[in-house]
Amino acid sequence: MSLFGLIEYADASPEVRAVYDDIMATRKTDWINNFWKAIAHDPVMLKRTWEDIKQIMSPGALDPLTKEMIYIAVSVTNLCEYCIASHTASAKNKGMTDAQFKELMSVVGMANETNRLVAGYQVEVDERFKAGFRS
Amino acid sequence: MSLFGLIEYADASPEVRAVYDDIMATRKTDWINNFWKAIAHDPVMLKRTWEDIKQIMSPGALDPLTKEMIYIAVSVTNLCEYCIASHTASAKNKGMTDAQFKELMSVVGMANETNRLVAGYQVEVDERFKAGFRS
Amino acid sequence: MSLFGLIEYADASPEVRAVYDDIMATRKTDWINNFWKAIAHDPVMLKRTWEDIKQIMSPGALDPLTKEMIYIAVSVTNLCEYCIASHTASAKNKGMTDAQFKELMSVVGMANETNRLVAGYQVEVDERFKAGFRS
Amino acid sequence: MSLFGLIEYADASPEVRAVYDDIMATRKTDWINNFWKAIAHDPVMLKRTWEDIKQIMSPGALDPLTKEMIYIAVSVTNLCEYCIASHTASAKNKGMTDAQFKELMSVVGMANETNRLVAGYQVEVDERFKAGFRS
Amino acid sequence: MSLFGLIEYADASPEVRAVYDDIMATRKTDWINNFWKAIAHDPVMLKRTWEDIKQIMSPGALDPLTKEMIYIAVSVTNLCEYCIASHTASAKNKGMTDAQFKELMSVVGMANETNRLVAGYQVEVDERFKAGFRS
Amino acid sequence: MSLFGLIEYADASPEVRAVYDDIMATRKTDWINNFWKAIAHDPVMLKRTWEDIKQIMSPGALDPLTKEMIYIAVSVTNLCEYCIASHTASAKNKGMTDAQFKELMSVVGMANETNRLVAGYQVEVDERFKAGFRS
Repeated sequence: MSLFGLIEYADASPEVRAVYDDIMATRKTDWINNFWKAIAHDPVMLKRTWEDIKQIMSPGALDPLTKEMIYIAVSVTNLCEYCIASHTASAKNKGMTDAQFKELMSVVGMANETNRLVAGYQVEVDERFKAGFRS
Repeated sequence: MSLFGLIEYADASPEVRAVYDDIMATRKTDWINNFWKAIAHDPVMLKRTWEDIKQIMSPGALDPLTKEMIYIAVSVTNLCEYCIASHTASAKNKGMTDAQFKELMSVVGMANETNRLVAGYQVEVDERFKAGFRS
Repeated sequence: MSLFGLIEYADASPEVRAVYDDIMATRKTDWINNFWKAIAHDPVMLKRTWEDIKQIMSPGALDPLTKEMIYIAVSVTNLCEYCIASHTASAKNKGMTDAQFKELMSVVGMANETNRLVAGYQVEVDERFKAGFRS
Repeated sequence: MSLFGLIEYADASPEVRAVYDDIMATRKTDWINNFWKAIAHDPVMLKRTWEDIKQIMSPGALDPLTKEMIYIAVSVTNLCEYCIASHTASAKNKGMTDAQFKELMSVVGMANETNRLVAGYQVEVDERFKAGFRS
Repeated sequence: MSLFGLIEYADASPEVRAVYDDIMATRKTDWINNFWKAIAHDPVMLKRTWEDIKQIMSPGALDPLTKEMIYIAVSVTNLCEYCIASHTASAKNKGMTDAQFKELMSVVGMANETNRLVAGYQVEVDERFKAGFRS
Repeated sequence: MSLFGLIEYADASPEVRAVYDDIMATRKTDWINNFWKAIAHDPVMLKRTWEDIKQIMSPGALDPLTKEMIYIAVSVTNLCEYCIASHTASAKNKGMTDAQFKELMSVVGMANETNRLVAGYQVEVDERFKAGFRS
C-alpha cells in the first residue's frame, strides 16, 4: 500500500518508466522498491529525488557502502522503519558484514546518548572547536 | 560553562583524574574537552561513558574515521551543536578531508528528506526487505 | 486497540459523551476516531485537548485547510503514523487536492534536508534575520 | 562564521556566482544569506540545493506564503534556530501577518503535543483512515 | 529578545497582566520568565497555555518535582536549550538534588540510546507487551 | 522477528546465557523480552548495554518507578513504539497506577508543545537561568 497506491511498471507513464529504467540500470537489478512506486504519483518529485540520490550516493570521496551506513545512521536516529529496512538491505548488497552493522549500531546508540548528555549538562563549545576548517 | 561548571584536572578527584589520564593517553593528546569536564561531576557516569566510548570507537570492523562520520551523521540529524563541533574536529584529526565532509553532509541531508517522504506517502515495507539477515 | 482500550459512545460517561457530542457537532460527522476514544480514559485531558484543538483549528487568520497541512507537516517530520493518516484524511475532507498534498510533501522533505545542512555547516544567523518583527 | 567560512560574491568562482545571481534574480534582492555562502564550498551541492528549492518553493497548487509557513512548521519542530529565523523573515517578506504567525505557532505546538499523546496511548490507525486517496 | 520582543508587566494589557498575576501567585514569586513575556503577544495563547500548564503541573498522582523532571527529560531529548535551563531551575526550586539530576541524565541518555538500538535491530513488540492495561 | 532473528536461551552461547541469567535474577522473572534476544547477536554490546541499564535503573536518588516513567517520557517523545510498550509494562510492574500514567502523558505532551513555542518565538534564556547549580 501507500497513500495513493503503488504505480507498477506496466501502468507507468513514459516519464515514470524512464526513471524506473534508470534506477534498475544504475542498481543493476530488475526490481523497483515501494518507495519509488509510491512517489511516482508525483513524477516531477520522482525524477528530482532519484537524480539527487543517484548523484549523492555514487562513489566519490566516500565509498558507496560508507554512504549506505550513514543513511542507516540517520534513519535509525529518526526511527524510520521503512528506511532502516531498505537501506540495511542495500548496505548488505554492497557488502556490509554483520560485524560492521553491529559496530554501526553501537556508534549510533552512543551518539544519541551523548547528544543528550551534552544538552542536559548545558556544555558550551570549546574555543578550539570553533575554529572550523579554516587555516 | 555548563550546569555545574567544569572540573579542571588540577581540581579533580583521583578517580576523575584516572579517567582524564586515560582519555589523554588513548587520544594521544594533552587536552580534555568540555564534555568530560562537565559530566565529571558524576564520576560514575564519567567512567561508564568513557569506557563505553573507548570500546565503541576503537578500530574494529569499521575504521575510526568512519565511526566519527557516523557520529557526525547522528549529531547533525539531532541538531546537537556541541556534538557537531567536537566530532567534526575529531574526524578532521583522524584524516577526514573536506571532500569527505561534504559528501557526508549531502547524504545526511538526503536521508533526512527521504525519511519524511516515506512517512508522508505512508510507504509499506517491501516483502523482500523483511527477510533481514537470516539465510 | 490502544493502551486502555477504546471507550465507545455507548459505554461513555456523561462528561465524555458531552465531548464526543461536541466533536461530532463541530465536525458535522456522526463518527469519533480512535484518538479520542483512547484518551477518553482521562476525561480531564480529553476535554482540555478537545477544547484546545477546537479553538486552534477553527478559522482565523489561517483557513482550516492550511492548518491541517501544517499539522501534517509536523506529523511527517515526527514520523507519527497515526497523525499522518488522520490529518491527511481531515485535510482531504477539507478540500486538499492531490496536487496540494504533493507540494506539501516536497516542502516538508526539503525543509528537513536543509535543517541538517545548516546544522552540519554550522551556519550562523545573519544579522538582518535577528531583528525579528519589531519595527 | 560557519565551518569553512563564508564565500562572498567577490571571492566566488564563476559557477558559484551563477547560483548567487540566480538566487538574487529569483528573489528580487541584492543580498545572499549565510546559508548559501556556507554551502558554496561545495558548488555541486549549492547548485543542486538551490535548484531544488527554487522548483519546490515556486508558486503551484500552494502559494509561496503557505510554503514558507510549512517550512517554518518543520523548522520549529526540529528546533533549527537558523531555519526558523530565516524562513520567518522570508514569510514576513511574502506577507505573513503577525496574526498568521501566531496561529501557525499554535498549530505547530498542538501537533507536537498530540503526536506524543497518540504514541503514549498506543492508538491504532482507524480502518477508515487506511483507505488513502484511492477511489 | 524574542521574535516580537518581550512584554513587561508595566506595558501589558489588563488581560495579560491577569495571567502574569496568576503565574506569580501560583508560583509564589515576583518574577515572570521570558517565555511568558514572549508569547504574551498572543494573549489567547498565553492564557490557554498557562491554564493548561497550571492544571498539568499541579500536584496530583505525581508530585510537582517528578513532573519537572519529566519536563526536563522531554526537553533534553528535544535539545531545547531554553526549556532545559528553565525547567532545571524550576526543578531545583522544588527540591531537586544534584544526585537526582545526575540520575535523571543517566536515564535520559540511556533511553535515547536504546530507542535507537530497538529501531536498528528492528525488534518486534513482545506479545505480552501488547495486552496493555486491560485486565 | 528482528533483523538477525531472536536468540532463545536454549540456543544461546554461555556468555549470552550469563547475561540472560543476570537479567532474570535482577528482575525476578523467568522471561527475557525480545530486545535482549535481538541484540544478543552482538554479545559485547548485549553485556555492555545490560550492565549500563542495570546500574542506571537501580534504586538511587530516584526510585525505580520514577526512572521507568522518565524512560517512557523519552520513548514517547521519540515515538519509539517498542520502547513505549516495554517500559509501560515495566512501570506497571513497579506499581505505576493508571492515574500516574495519565499525568505522565499530560506532562510529556505539554513539554513537547512548549519546546516548540519557545523555538518559534525565539525566546532567549533568562539571565537568572544561566547561573546553573553553582553557588
